[in-house]
Amino acid sequence: MELIVQKFGGSSVADAEKIKAAAQRVAQSFRKGNQVVAVVSACGQTTDELFALAEEITDRPSTRELDMLVSTGEQMSIALMAMAIHALGHDAISFTGAQVGIVTDSQHTKARILKINTKKIKEELDRGKIVVVAGYQGVDAYNNITTLGRGGSDATAVALAALLKADLCEIFTDVDGIYTADPRIVPEARKLDRISYDELLELASLGAKVMQARSIEFAKRYNVPLRVRPCFNNSEGTTICQEVREMEENVVSGVTVTKDEAKVIIRGIPDRPGLAARIFREMAQSNVNVDMIIQNIGTHGQANITFTVPKAELDAAMEAVRKIQGEICAQEVSADSNVAKLSVVGIGMRSHCGIAEKMFHALAEEEINIQMISTSEIKISCIIDEAQAGRAAKAVHKAFGLERPGRPGS
Amino acid sequence: MELIVQKFGGSSVADAEKIKAAAQRVAQSFRKGNQVVAVVSACGQTTDELFALAEEITDRPSTRELDMLVSTGEQMSIALMAMAIHALGHDAISFTGAQVGIVTDSQHTKARILKINTKKIKEELDRGKIVVVAGYQGVDAYNNITTLGRGGSDATAVALAALLKADLCEIFTDVDGIYTADPRIVPEARKLDRISYDELLELASLGAKVMQARSIEFAKRYNVPLRVRPCFNNSEGTTICQEVREMEENVVSGVTVTKDEAKVIIRGIPDRPGLAARIFREMAQSNVNVDMIIQNIGTHGQANITFTVPKAELDAAMEAVRKIQGEICAQEVSADSNVAKLSVVGIGMRSHCGIAEKMFHALAEEEINIQMISTSEIKISCIIDEAQAGRAAKAVHKAFGLERPGRPGS
Repeated sequence: MELIVQKFGGSSVADAEKIKAAAQRVAQSFRKGNQVVAVVSACGQTTDELFALAEEITDRPSTRELDMLVSTGEQMSIALMAMAIHALGHDAISFTGAQVGIVTDSQHTKARILKINTKKIKEELDRGKIVVVAGYQGVDAYNNITTLGRGGSDATAVALAALLKADLCEIFTDVDGIYTADPRIVPEARKLDRISYDELLELASLGAKVMQARSIEFAKRYNVPLRVRPCFNNSEGTTICQEVREMEENVVSGVTVTKDEAKVIIRGIPDRPGLAARIFREMAQSNVNVDMIIQNIGTHGQANITFTVPKAELDAAMEAVRKIQGEICAQEVSADSNVAKLSVVGIGMRSHCGIAEKMFHALAEEEINIQMISTSEIKISCIIDEAQAGRAAKAVHKAFGLERPGRPGS
Repeated sequence: MELIVQKFGGSSVADAEKIKAAAQRVAQSFRKGNQVVAVVSACGQTTDELFALAEEITDRPSTRELDMLVSTGEQMSIALMAMAIHALGHDAISFTGAQVGIVTDSQHTKARILKINTKKIKEELDRGKIVVVAGYQGVDAYNNITTLGRGGSDATAVALAALLKADLCEIFTDVDGIYTADPRIVPEARKLDRISYDELLELASLGAKVMQARSIEFAKRYNVPLRVRPCFNNSEGTTICQEVREMEENVVSGVTVTKDEAKVIIRGIPDRPGLAARIFREMAQSNVNVDMIIQNIGTHGQANITFTVPKAELDAAMEAVRKIQGEICAQEVSADSNVAKLSVVGIGMRSHCGIAEKMFHALAEEEINIQMISTSEIKISCIIDEAQAGRAAKAVHKAFGLERPGRPGS
């Protein structure tokens, strides 16, 4: 008998038919003799609708009351899910985050889980019940309802799986699994059967959008076996686990493209200590998240600094730069939002040389200019012209042989 | 400084505009220096919509999960109400039934309040906050969410008012107050400034539909000063309190008509002990609620029994009677659903004679036949032909001078 945590996202429980289908998935696992904990998000657009209700009342709602409001979304879906499981002839019981003892800090709308009392869940499992738990929500030390922010239901599922020492944590979603690239951009993209936590982390932070980084990190730390599966068919999806021997053959696991960043260029500042620090202190004070930074020496002892920020924060970034333009003696400030970030991710990079060269060569062959480069231990990212992003992704995907099953990226 | 409990029903918080208006009412009382506890129902049709969601999943939902589902209705409205009060510049905090410690029995969908821990509410009131509490819901001893059934929000408000020793419990609703008769039936009907708990109880059980009997009984037992007020204007509404001296002048406070009962007639049964008991045991076993019962001796030592049941239960009642028709040797069984019950209610009846005579005379003058009569200490009810109900109500209302302000019914 295994203990399985199954998480169903909002699109998996968007209406009565989908809730019934999700209940079938739960029942299937239960009938195989497993203990099952289902973690459920709010149905479809419910959370957005609840936020819209709050907006009708006030444009600056208290975050405590916002959590009180939006947490009703999962409470509805767990009740409906439990009913749907009952209708299939199995015993199920639903719990809100508060009832099950998911204790968080008091950061309303973006709380972090501090501890979970798993006693109640274990008792109900041992009574032969399927336990349905509200994702995304908890309760602080003062019994105020809190929510966990974006990706919160994944966080609930992974934390529960870790603390219950679950044999598997399945994330049901509206994608087939983790792909070597976005199939809408690279039609030859192939679904991966396995990937490491670290690789998925890089892919997640690069916009693969399957799971939030915090949940993957948590799963990695507690060694929770994860599987990302589609809710719409019986595909096995992609298993996410620690790095294993066979993985070393996969030099590159995937290629990603994100278009949500913009570039800020500051030209002709004096080449002296402290000016870069001054710029990025200003960015931090303006709440602008800076991603890649490049500094190089220009002519006449003057330096250029280029960095990327989320497109949504470009206006704030430019305002902040203009404010200090005089102070840092910058000759010219400009922005470019027509850029994309192309990345390759793979654990095998650690022990293989020539990955960067292969990527750059593939781009050169397509006559695509690289504007900025940044690397981590298992990732290489390039900023390129947005219009060339699709062609670039295809070329790089092909260069690493990712479309071939078996030993991708080798 | 007074402590006021204000209860807002579903129609008073049906949309954002109405919630803002309700928040204004709360703020008005608070600004006068009062401590205010607002008890809020689910917005408008929310509860019905949630029941419909459950029906999409299964036609026999577990009552525990039904309570989990529908209790989200009030949770939404308390959050929105707290936000609306914040927007008016006052501090407010919302609590679910569970959070505030409204402990009930475990009868899901129709739970009864066992106790309320008022400590949390008092603390927040003493911090200068307006406390917003979810009506209709509580939590049982095992921390399962329960709901209180029809009129549950009134029950929450009255129980809180009793335990907090509130100076006033205001029930905001979509009527102007308590009337001497339904103005749609008797256009001359007049709003009462004051009425006793007992009179309102009789009016409520007769269909005045302003408050459920259980809440009025509770208010009476704990001597909670009640006021039924409209949410759509500043009318003072009707105050409900114990019987006071001046009330004795009001022989009759109101006239009501209900059309939701039907009559069952059993003719020609032997006049011997035990047969009536047999009939009503069968009704009880069929879950039929019997209201009025009349037995009289017919010809040849045979008896006739006539009784009334809710129209919705007439089929079940007839089935039950036909089942035992042979056993009780009844010659004839028939039903009549075209009946109405006309009642006059008034505390003054206790000390005044001639009320029944005056009522019957008024009906006789209109040539309206009385089919059945039943009386209590402060009520006289007659079953009459449904088609004559409106005319009968007007005649009786006029006979007791209820349209005249000052000393009605004297």
